[in-house]
Amino acid sequence: MIVGFIGLGIMGRPMAKNLISAGYKLVVYDKFAKIDDLVTLGAEKGTSNKDVASRSDVIITMLPNSPHVKEAILGSGGVIEGVKSGAIVVDMSSIAPAASQEVGAALKAKGVNFLDAPVSGGEPKAIDGSLAIMVGGDQKTFDTVKPILEKMGSSVVLVGDVGAGNVTKLANQIVVALNIAAVSEAFTLATKAGVKPQAVFDAIKGGLAGSTVMNAKIPMILDGNFKPGFRIELHIKDLQNALDTAHNLGVPIPLTAEVMETLQGLKNDGFAANDHSAIVRHYEKLAKVEVRK
Amino acid sequence: MIVGFIGLGIMGRPMAKNLISAGYKLVVYDKFAKIDDLVTLGAEKGTSNKDVASRSDVIITMLPNSPHVKEAILGSGGVIEGVKSGAIVVDMSSIAPAASQEVGAALKAKGVNFLDAPVSGGEPKAIDGSLAIMVGGDQKTFDTVKPILEKMGSSVVLVGDVGAGNVTKLANQIVVALNIAAVSEAFTLATKAGVKPQAVFDAIKGGLAGSTVMNAKIPMILDGNFKPGFRIELHIKDLQNALDTAHNLGVPIPLTAEVMETLQGLKNDGFAANDHSAIVRHYEKLAKVEVRK
Repeated sequence: MIVGFIGLGIMGRPMAKNLISAGYKLVVYDKFAKIDDLVTLGAEKGTSNKDVASRSDVIITMLPNSPHVKEAILGSGGVIEGVKSGAIVVDMSSIAPAASQEVGAALKAKGVNFLDAPVSGGEPKAIDGSLAIMVGGDQKTFDTVKPILEKMGSSVVLVGDVGAGNVTKLANQIVVALNIAAVSEAFTLATKAGVKPQAVFDAIKGGLAGSTVMNAKIPMILDGNFKPGFRIELHIKDLQNALDTAHNLGVPIPLTAEVMETLQGLKNDGFAANDHSAIVRHYEKLAKVEVRK
Repeated sequence: MIVGFIGLGIMGRPMAKNLISAGYKLVVYDKFAKIDDLVTLGAEKGTSNKDVASRSDVIITMLPNSPHVKEAILGSGGVIEGVKSGAIVVDMSSIAPAASQEVGAALKAKGVNFLDAPVSGGEPKAIDGSLAIMVGGDQKTFDTVKPILEKMGSSVVLVGDVGAGNVTKLANQIVVALNIAAVSEAFTLATKAGVKPQAVFDAIKGGLAGSTVMNAKIPMILDGNFKPGFRIELHIKDLQNALDTAHNLGVPIPLTAEVMETLQGLKNDGFAANDHSAIVRHYEKLAKVEVRK
């Protein structure tokens, strides 16, 4: 089985390396990134999205957002022009669910099965192959590519039809953004009230207020360490997709909308490349206090 | 050592019982609740707040909110009129930090030490003695009463000076309210988008979006079970104290303010006695969908 891999950035590159390490034969292509290191490891060099598709049984894409995925798969010289009938395309990018459905429908008309399979966990988990992968599509296609996905992720879950993977990813990103905002409001208030944030953390982390966000981000905030992790500019992208999706469906998500405005302000203040835990900077600025050790 | 216990409602009664079980000699009083069961267990009956104070070395209060605590301790016939110099007063109610500081200062002027020691965990953990207790006050007073508090809680943490216990409790309640709102927005969107909420839960609970709130409340929501737990009307009280405290300190907490408005709407809709997981009902109503199995 030949696996095509398109999009070899911060996430795609280590994911592709894990497939090579697992013994898969890869054909790789990226419009911008150098791929020499992957060729050295044994991957074949593709010359275009179409070329990769024509040489592969399963084609994986890992790109920034909906327009890039639509261009790479449906555009001129795209996957759809080269893909073999019966092949499977798996888009692992985090994009709008409606874009997943559009791509899936166009491929289906060509006899090609499609899964949307966005991931959670960031670069460290891409490197060690322990991503959480949320998959939308049919059971048979899922079963066929599951062994491949399991080389990149420790949790591979079929959550529904095409698009459901990205809906689940958006739900994940809403919860993460709001949970960061929650600890930001709470710890800014406590700090301004004169209570040491480390003491608050120790007192409440074991109870109903406890969360993975609190455990992961409060130590970073207390150290003033906003090195990503997951960049604010990427969370802006995800929340834009969440808001678009919600509005198309008529679902008001007002707190998400407010966090989006907070992120816009942080971007203007020069924090776009900070970890999303820098949401706390917004509250610190408003309250004239820093949540530090 | 004689322990006075004032306020024997849903929380105070099982807490007092745990002290009796542990061998403490109690004098108990409640303005409204019957206390015959506690007398049967061996407690002595106090006739007023003042009377309890005059007969006790440590006086614990467990009352609904700031005005009740100020009335019971500082009011006519209150603790302050009977308390012995050198005694210790421990208020375990969840009240405004400023009220804790006012009570503490008044008692200090009489040579009486004071701790604010609000709890988290609700009735079940009050019954089994596993509350989280967040304590504000000085180290020596804390050390003296810690053995008593450990009969009611499994986590007893000194977080700072008088008032810090309630600041920490407010931080806890902000995070809990916002984390419930976070899963409510996310799961309402996913459900309206046609993805099964159970699948979303399974896919994201192990990642960065995971939280104690998600694990505790999503199963309740999926079952349509809004039996408290912790009632919306009590969370309204806590968020009012959080907003008052924040505004006094000049700390904007806009997401907390918005959840407060959501809770007001839910109260108007007749859900004041629902568990706070019923925050999801607000989003369900807006989106015309139910997040159920």
